[in-house]
Amino acid sequence: MEIRITKTKTPGVMPPEDKLGFGKVFTDHMLIVDWNEETGWQDARIVPFGRISLHPASTVLHYGAEIFEGLKAYRRADGGVQLFRPMENVKRMNNSAERMSLPQMDEKDMLGLITTFVKTEERWVPKSFGTSLYLRPFLFGNDESLGVHSVKNATFMLIASPSGSYYKEGINPVGIMIEDEDVRTVRGGTGYAKCGGNYAASTRAGEKAAKKGYSQVLWLDGVERKYIEEVGAMNVMFKIDGEIVTPKLTGSILPGITRKSCIEVLKAQGYQVSERLLSLDELVSAMESGRLEEAWGCGTAAVVSPIGKLAIGEKEYIIGGGKIGEVTQKLYDLLTGIQWGKLEDEFGWVYKL
Amino acid sequence: MEIRITKTKTPGVMPPEDKLGFGKVFTDHMLIVDWNEETGWQDARIVPFGRISLHPASTVLHYGAEIFEGLKAYRRADGGVQLFRPMENVKRMNNSAERMSLPQMDEKDMLGLITTFVKTEERWVPKSFGTSLYLRPFLFGNDESLGVHSVKNATFMLIASPSGSYYKEGINPVGIMIEDEDVRTVRGGTGYAKCGGNYAASTRAGEKAAKKGYSQVLWLDGVERKYIEEVGAMNVMFKIDGEIVTPKLTGSILPGITRKSCIEVLKAQGYQVSERLLSLDELVSAMESGRLEEAWGCGTAAVVSPIGKLAIGEKEYIIGGGKIGEVTQKLYDLLTGIQWGKLEDEFGWVYKL
Repeated sequence: MEIRITKTKTPGVMPPEDKLGFGKVFTDHMLIVDWNEETGWQDARIVPFGRISLHPASTVLHYGAEIFEGLKAYRRADGGVQLFRPMENVKRMNNSAERMSLPQMDEKDMLGLITTFVKTEERWVPKSFGTSLYLRPFLFGNDESLGVHSVKNATFMLIASPSGSYYKEGINPVGIMIEDEDVRTVRGGTGYAKCGGNYAASTRAGEKAAKKGYSQVLWLDGVERKYIEEVGAMNVMFKIDGEIVTPKLTGSILPGITRKSCIEVLKAQGYQVSERLLSLDELVSAMESGRLEEAWGCGTAAVVSPIGKLAIGEKEYIIGGGKIGEVTQKLYDLLTGIQWGKLEDEFGWVYKL
Repeated sequence: MEIRITKTKTPGVMPPEDKLGFGKVFTDHMLIVDWNEETGWQDARIVPFGRISLHPASTVLHYGAEIFEGLKAYRRADGGVQLFRPMENVKRMNNSAERMSLPQMDEKDMLGLITTFVKTEERWVPKSFGTSLYLRPFLFGNDESLGVHSVKNATFMLIASPSGSYYKEGINPVGIMIEDEDVRTVRGGTGYAKCGGNYAASTRAGEKAAKKGYSQVLWLDGVERKYIEEVGAMNVMFKIDGEIVTPKLTGSILPGITRKSCIEVLKAQGYQVSERLLSLDELVSAMESGRLEEAWGCGTAAVVSPIGKLAIGEKEYIIGGGKIGEVTQKLYDLLTGIQWGKLEDEFGWVYKL
């Protein structure tokens, strides 16, 4: 796909790397590609970052026709820049598009857009370990009418934000709580798609958890309200009696790329990893009998996020003495080592620009 | 709430009333109100209709933070304009906002915005029976950052579109099909909220139905995949052995205002109306034994939409001989009669401007 590039005349200034937050500062440019039912993808362009103009009836403002991805560009010690399994994001974006009746894009084209864009914005990839350039491809329906149907027009965009280290103050285990009222999604719904509606459905519960002093909620399945699904907007893993357990992908769970990478790393290291149903009852029984050794969330932002405390109603359970466990730490060291180019990439996951 | 009005200098032209479609032509103005966590609702303004400018990281483009309402302004024979139960829309908008962690608005303020806007756009309310000015209030999260949390900024808007008669070619019963793969939403989810994600989740199934020659899908519940929920984006009602049955509001069903009005009309006329669980099995048994007399969808757009055919897998059932039934016709005549001011408003539903 040909990309027209219009460079900004007013380049921005990169904030100090220890002052970078998440998703608030953006780079100089943005990438836009239009799609029309008749002509397909067209007019790929990188233009100065700025506000976009939408018709007030645009589908994305009314009917939630929107999907996105999140990945990072990492600076290696040798100064080079690399991505981590970007083709996995490309494939998931297309899977999300299929579920939401949005247009898919040729995989190589999408990867080409991402890499060309990162090369254009290379100076925005920060240098310190833990920092990165967060990349946000997103795609939305953009018809200019209020009829409810699959769209005839859509817009693909890519914006980027230099982001600080998730663990600036060290890796501190978080407290989470079981959400027993709201449901994120359900089998047959949109849980496996990275679509706006899943996040919109989750906000209220996240707020409730925050008010009670917890970082995230632990979601139960929408059918039986019995099986563990995800933690906040991350996948979740547990070490029970030496076995690593993570909820299997039943359709209502996001197929995380960090999740997949953790599973592959752990299997390569000889751990027994089970993708299976895990009920809250089983988890409670493991906690009460001292067999729950570790628990952690995994996702692009945090890589891994150790869970030190789990609340079920009024009852609180401390996990792993409230400290980060051995496997969690090992996963963090290994994945971040590969991502930032400190460790050898024995899995072939790194995509150097 | 004070409203600043800036009139357009280039008023549009109303299309011929027999050429009006749905949601494609918009009036001269739009209403915008900003909300900020610290200052609340502010700067209500009616301005010339036009494109809006959004930050590319705006919450609505990524995390589906969006709700809407749909109601109509009707032209009476005496030339006056009226709304139908607008306070019901106002209340539902606030209920949707609560579920989606979006800001609520004082009920009287919201009604005031709607009525002031309709007065400004009065010339766009068409005159023929069946035509109306469709009003679309919507509200979206509008933070300019990628963090996932409840928003600190939001935008309320109101746009309007003169709309043609839904039944220009007469009321023809539609064919619908059971959707047995996708699920719209689930108890604990967002089904009762009028939010974008519900519609995004429904698009693929609607497209599948259209390809098979059906107008709409009939949704089953997400837990047991057994109970009837809605038809397309409408509520659904059945007349079985003289009893009017409509799925009860379990949390995954939109509390339709037309649904509520149908129930109230039917009860006033002495019908037995049951809001209860209705399984597909019960429906099939009623169809096979000839006890299903009528079936119809109900919603703002169509008022009522008779169902003449129901497909379950490869099997097709004809309902009511494929013709509109007596109760469906009666509901249509009575509700449209009140809405367009042809019948006396014995229920106190009409809100004259």
